[in-house]
Amino acid sequence: MAFLHERLDNGLEVIAETTESALSTSVGFFAMTGARDERDDLWGVSHFLEHMVFKGTADLSGDDINRRFDAMGASVNAFTGEEDTVYYAAVLPRQQHEAVDLLARMMRPALREEDFATEKLVILEEIRMYDDQPPFGADDRCRASFFGRHPLGRSVLGSTESIQALPVEAMRDYHRRRYAPGTVVLAASGAVDFPALVESARRLCGDWEPVPAGDRRVPGVPRAPAVGGVERIVRPAAALAYAVRMAAGPAEPDPDRYAAKLLAVVLGDSSGSRLYWALVDPGDAEQASLHHQDFLDAGLFVTQLSCDAADAESLLERMLGIYAEARNQGIDTREVTQARNKLAGRVVLGGERPRRRLFDVGLEWSHSRTYRSVADTLRIVESLTLDDVQRVLSAWAPDGPAATVLAGPGAEGETSA
Amino acid sequence: MAFLHERLDNGLEVIAETTESALSTSVGFFAMTGARDERDDLWGVSHFLEHMVFKGTADLSGDDINRRFDAMGASVNAFTGEEDTVYYAAVLPRQQHEAVDLLARMMRPALREEDFATEKLVILEEIRMYDDQPPFGADDRCRASFFGRHPLGRSVLGSTESIQALPVEAMRDYHRRRYAPGTVVLAASGAVDFPALVESARRLCGDWEPVPAGDRRVPGVPRAPAVGGVERIVRPAAALAYAVRMAAGPAEPDPDRYAAKLLAVVLGDSSGSRLYWALVDPGDAEQASLHHQDFLDAGLFVTQLSCDAADAESLLERMLGIYAEARNQGIDTREVTQARNKLAGRVVLGGERPRRRLFDVGLEWSHSRTYRSVADTLRIVESLTLDDVQRVLSAWAPDGPAATVLAGPGAEGETSA
Repeated sequence: MAFLHERLDNGLEVIAETTESALSTSVGFFAMTGARDERDDLWGVSHFLEHMVFKGTADLSGDDINRRFDAMGASVNAFTGEEDTVYYAAVLPRQQHEAVDLLARMMRPALREEDFATEKLVILEEIRMYDDQPPFGADDRCRASFFGRHPLGRSVLGSTESIQALPVEAMRDYHRRRYAPGTVVLAASGAVDFPALVESARRLCGDWEPVPAGDRRVPGVPRAPAVGGVERIVRPAAALAYAVRMAAGPAEPDPDRYAAKLLAVVLGDSSGSRLYWALVDPGDAEQASLHHQDFLDAGLFVTQLSCDAADAESLLERMLGIYAEARNQGIDTREVTQARNKLAGRVVLGGERPRRRLFDVGLEWSHSRTYRSVADTLRIVESLTLDDVQRVLSAWAPDGPAATVLAGPGAEGETSA
Repeated sequence: MAFLHERLDNGLEVIAETTESALSTSVGFFAMTGARDERDDLWGVSHFLEHMVFKGTADLSGDDINRRFDAMGASVNAFTGEEDTVYYAAVLPRQQHEAVDLLARMMRPALREEDFATEKLVILEEIRMYDDQPPFGADDRCRASFFGRHPLGRSVLGSTESIQALPVEAMRDYHRRRYAPGTVVLAASGAVDFPALVESARRLCGDWEPVPAGDRRVPGVPRAPAVGGVERIVRPAAALAYAVRMAAGPAEPDPDRYAAKLLAVVLGDSSGSRLYWALVDPGDAEQASLHHQDFLDAGLFVTQLSCDAADAESLLERMLGIYAEARNQGIDTREVTQARNKLAGRVVLGGERPRRRLFDVGLEWSHSRTYRSVADTLRIVESLTLDDVQRVLSAWAPDGPAATVLAGPGAEGETSA
């Protein structure tokens, strides 16, 4: 296992974690841009652009791209989040050059007006479906309520209105600014020929124009929700109720990031946690969980519940009671040991796949210009103590001030929000 | 990478593929028993028994088992197929002993009468749900029609009638015969301490009573379906139609096994295949695919289609036409190269996960007492030629005699089969 790093003259960073025993190669372009980097009039452009990247370049049609990946037998995909847009492929080592070549060309898409118009309909349909499926947009709404005017309050998909109003020129300008060498990392993992990777990058991306990259962090991240109380989304046909509750937690650069994740496993892992034994095992709730989510400059403790509609509010109360009890009476060493085993197991099982390592390594480097091997992360997790968990629990109470959204069939007399 | 093997005095085989760089350990018990080893009055017992194994032993309750796995942070599960019942856990290396200990105890379940009665309701519900979801049992029905009285015609879940009629004594007897040392393999992969594994096996399974294991293969496997023509399953509320078509193909021990899989990728992979470009890409079908499935003494080419109900029969015709065209006019080198890349990529990407290797290594050993590394399998795939694929295509025409089941809303005037 080795970590390699090179910076091209135009600022593009090329990194790789190489594993001698690997039989496959994963490569990806990590664009450090997402919903948080949009303005109101660009809302949803990052995700829409991700779709457009597969529609072709000046020289290649969308069909050409699909057929070339197919011919390689590549496993290829992309995703857009609040802070990142990632394009990746997993291939046999002998196809490294071909895969990088194709992905690099895609990073300079044609953004043709007719493709833009067609794909807009696909995006609008995606927004509609998202709102139509459990939890009926409750998570996006909750994040919007927690973050208020902070850019992390923006959903990844955008709104029907913002997508409808978006002109292709705005996407072209956004692409020029946000897919510049200083904002993109080329990462690889597995069986990587690093000199060849750097050579490919020079030849294919060496002429990309640098654009100054600003600081993406925003001062004044809220520790309390912009909108408190319980908001409701009513879907008369829904079979179950879904609750999402967001309270502040440690951000990505916070040394307590992993302790926060450990605390979430103790209190609200999908099995074997306090919430599980109190609510899910006896059948009171379909699902009741807590997890920790981190961003560049903010963090969240996210509580999720699905249950019979009549029980939602009383179960939410019980969940807060379980958090408060942990805060007041503490948690015990046995619980921390079990959660540490779980977390370590996940780090290790995930870390054994080069494909999965690509994301860990690429995102970590994009966000903080640091590299951590699986063994490094494992050491951090294994060294966490009861004290660390208790400290997070008192500093960032998951039962503290929060935004809450309840989606479901609604009580009699309620109307759709 | 090393392969290790030991046979206990009572006949239990212990095998491991060890990987030096692995950070996790996967262990599993592979019981060489499944639907094909049942009699009519035991139909469904293998899968039902798999559920019962999690209900506890003489010393441990089902809850104890869950809590002990939880405490390890283990990822644990089981599955039952036509020919195998597999129980497995992925853990940190330091928990190897604990995981083997718990799994080994589970292999000697209490099979308590009250648990049996409760779990019977769960199984009956599972059968009901299976029939209620697309493709509405079409695959099981099609296999039954193809294999007729051959034991591979039996579905894994059993029928409502066979499960209702099953007495707990019959399950206890089946367990005694089919979970004997000669019928079970203990396999491990990843970071394995093999001497400790063998020591655990001796201590925990050394007193298991041997039972003579018969030959599971059955002479007279059909190359043509027991029931031909098109059978129908009518579900008036279904949105789409689903077709399943099964024709004979090479069995597991056949040297043409991998060539058959390559042929299926060329003709009917879920993307980039002949069926894909002809039917799925233009939007005529939701899904249209061909895959090859192999058993100890039989093989199948399975065609699957989902589409608008009105189009099902004409699309099935077109699929057969595509197979016939390939048979008559041949396929070309470019198609074989692309399919070989895909297949090689899947072998390699799957093979990088110790958890996934456990299944490959354990099942291969259970069925044929052979071991193949990922590199071995890769060599087989990479050496396949156009001639190999053409040979399979003429010997086992996927458009040849077949059982076909069509499930969907049905045409006017039709009634439920």
